[in-house]
Amino acid sequence: MRVLILGGDGYLGWPTAMRFSAGGHEVSVVDNFSRRRWHIEHSTDSLTPIGSLGDRIDAWRDLSGNEIRAYVGSIEDGEFIDTVISETSPEAIVHYGEQPSAPFSMKSRAAAVETQYTNVIGTLNVLFSIRDRVPDCHLVKLGTMGEYGTPNIDIEEGFIEIEHKGRSDVLPFPKMPGSLYHLSKVHDSHNIHFACRIWGLRSTDLNQGVVYGIETEESADDERLITRFDYDEYFGTVLNRFCVQAVIGHPLTVYGEGGQTRGFLNIRDTLQCVELAVSNPPELGEYRVFNQFTEQFSVAELADLVRRSSAELGFEVEVRSFPNPRIEAERHYYNAAHSKLLELGLEPHHLGEELVHSMLKIISRHSDRVIERAILPTTRWKPGELEGQIPSPAS
Amino acid sequence: MRVLILGGDGYLGWPTAMRFSAGGHEVSVVDNFSRRRWHIEHSTDSLTPIGSLGDRIDAWRDLSGNEIRAYVGSIEDGEFIDTVISETSPEAIVHYGEQPSAPFSMKSRAAAVETQYTNVIGTLNVLFSIRDRVPDCHLVKLGTMGEYGTPNIDIEEGFIEIEHKGRSDVLPFPKMPGSLYHLSKVHDSHNIHFACRIWGLRSTDLNQGVVYGIETEESADDERLITRFDYDEYFGTVLNRFCVQAVIGHPLTVYGEGGQTRGFLNIRDTLQCVELAVSNPPELGEYRVFNQFTEQFSVAELADLVRRSSAELGFEVEVRSFPNPRIEAERHYYNAAHSKLLELGLEPHHLGEELVHSMLKIISRHSDRVIERAILPTTRWKPGELEGQIPSPAS
Repeated sequence: MRVLILGGDGYLGWPTAMRFSAGGHEVSVVDNFSRRRWHIEHSTDSLTPIGSLGDRIDAWRDLSGNEIRAYVGSIEDGEFIDTVISETSPEAIVHYGEQPSAPFSMKSRAAAVETQYTNVIGTLNVLFSIRDRVPDCHLVKLGTMGEYGTPNIDIEEGFIEIEHKGRSDVLPFPKMPGSLYHLSKVHDSHNIHFACRIWGLRSTDLNQGVVYGIETEESADDERLITRFDYDEYFGTVLNRFCVQAVIGHPLTVYGEGGQTRGFLNIRDTLQCVELAVSNPPELGEYRVFNQFTEQFSVAELADLVRRSSAELGFEVEVRSFPNPRIEAERHYYNAAHSKLLELGLEPHHLGEELVHSMLKIISRHSDRVIERAILPTTRWKPGELEGQIPSPAS
Repeated sequence: MRVLILGGDGYLGWPTAMRFSAGGHEVSVVDNFSRRRWHIEHSTDSLTPIGSLGDRIDAWRDLSGNEIRAYVGSIEDGEFIDTVISETSPEAIVHYGEQPSAPFSMKSRAAAVETQYTNVIGTLNVLFSIRDRVPDCHLVKLGTMGEYGTPNIDIEEGFIEIEHKGRSDVLPFPKMPGSLYHLSKVHDSHNIHFACRIWGLRSTDLNQGVVYGIETEESADDERLITRFDYDEYFGTVLNRFCVQAVIGHPLTVYGEGGQTRGFLNIRDTLQCVELAVSNPPELGEYRVFNQFTEQFSVAELADLVRRSSAELGFEVEVRSFPNPRIEAERHYYNAAHSKLLELGLEPHHLGEELVHSMLKIISRHSDRVIERAILPTTRWKPGELEGQIPSPAS
């Protein structure tokens, strides 16, 4: 199958490219290296010493004998992505090509505009090119569980049946996202749904939980193939950040009460889910939503798990509550459906001490690369709140 | 009160500016004249011979003695709008400054991108400037009833209480809009809601129905003050278009079965509604939605009303069904709540033959300006559908 991966130089994009290439698919990737640029702008970097995209493609060819084609450019450039889609004629497009950070989107007007422009206009361009060039192509779009927010009812997978004043309809699940980044994903979802309804395209919107982990099957054997691993305030997700903090002896940064509950999944399961979506495409005209996570945890539970697992390896770890830079509920109801990928055959890697141990070991190998300045949050959801307050224990 | 009107050169923006100025408010307007530019690009024009913004401001000063300040620029330019908001320090911002046409948004990738960029990024810039410059300011944003689409349940005003698996919550009403323009308004609504929830701003989102009419109290006495009146495929709304067609002897262009039902209101009621919203602001942190229309009609009912009213003035009018260029339900359930503005004191001008007569008379005065080529739809919601088919009677 011809598979095009947008954002193929990224944390998930690169392992996904290798996975499909290993499976015998004809893989092309698109990237504009904005993640690398944003790191340069913040004087931060990936913990893992990743090679250039070209070097990684060379290493993958050495190892597997398979070619991955690279196209360098931005999907915000409609002519560029149209040419790529026309040339590669993909049967599936896996779309990771977006600005993925909530704090980044909240740090300034310019960053907010960049986020919504990149994500919304980029995806809109992709939809037009699919319509005009490859109308049968299956768009597998990475969304986020954060689109739903934390409603007081169970979260369903994309749609909900509503009974109201004696009538009923199945409608998109209402969205109350928590950042301007998460909003951009809500906008994408509405645009993609429309393209399926009106133009007859087909798409799977993967509302992904928080991903953790470093290694995947393809990267485990050769350091040259390792994926990026971010732990900074902008691009580091919570469990990844905690593991880095544990290794360097930094207190684990729990924001507020730590009762914030979210869906989580192992990076290996991201690859499984994307593969399952690609091999089981929806009908033309269908827009389907899968909630892509395997387990729910609160932030406090994760901190405790990392503390316990680290102790076993001899790292002494302190868990500290820091003033929450975000505006979010710190105690709330949370129960989200996530059965559709299981029904397709997903076999979850559950989170436990073993996985944390393996992450801690890899991080230890690169601990000299940790830039400690990058860890504490400087972006406030509401400017003025906590202003001038040096992050410190909440109590 | 200091009132800033975004899109103050437009069909509704200009009459709104005069209304607030007449009411003793300190009025500033922002416009980048994109509507005039789009007309030039399509070789079309307003039916009414409108003056330049400068000429109309001069005429208004002559007549009323009041000054309206004009700022020329685009709200997509964050620095520009930030300077304007900082300088004018508005207590209320009435935001009409968007690309308002569904067919325009569907005609090409470039037009779709322009629509979502202009509308979403423009509004995002306005939200940041309110947050940073005038956090108490009330944003009165023009949305559209088209955000809801045509669900099989009653449409509520912005929010709906959902009972689900033994729990309940009040959540944003799910949206299924019918064009990329309508989607841009859905995106705006989500962004504005967020700004109220997280930054504590206050906003009224006016989900407006289809507006008809030409004259308002302020413009009736002096031809120099008349507002623009569009009847072309892109910017002409249905009743306005039908009235022009009736005057020039063109068959009334009903798309498909004509069972499409929408909410409608008189342009005079738009001004009333905006005034009511401004004089009854929400609390800080509150995002409220008013469905802004006074009556529901199907397209076929409107065609029939125009036919009957025209006959009384001696215009012989044929009603014809044309192949529908849109993808939309032509028969559907439709029942939308619209009580909140009535509760604030709205006194509707109901649609009837008298109003149609007055429109037909004004149109007759300018009938030599009608560009007939501009009337028939050329943009298809789904390219390929009806391709090459010259619009003609459906049966």
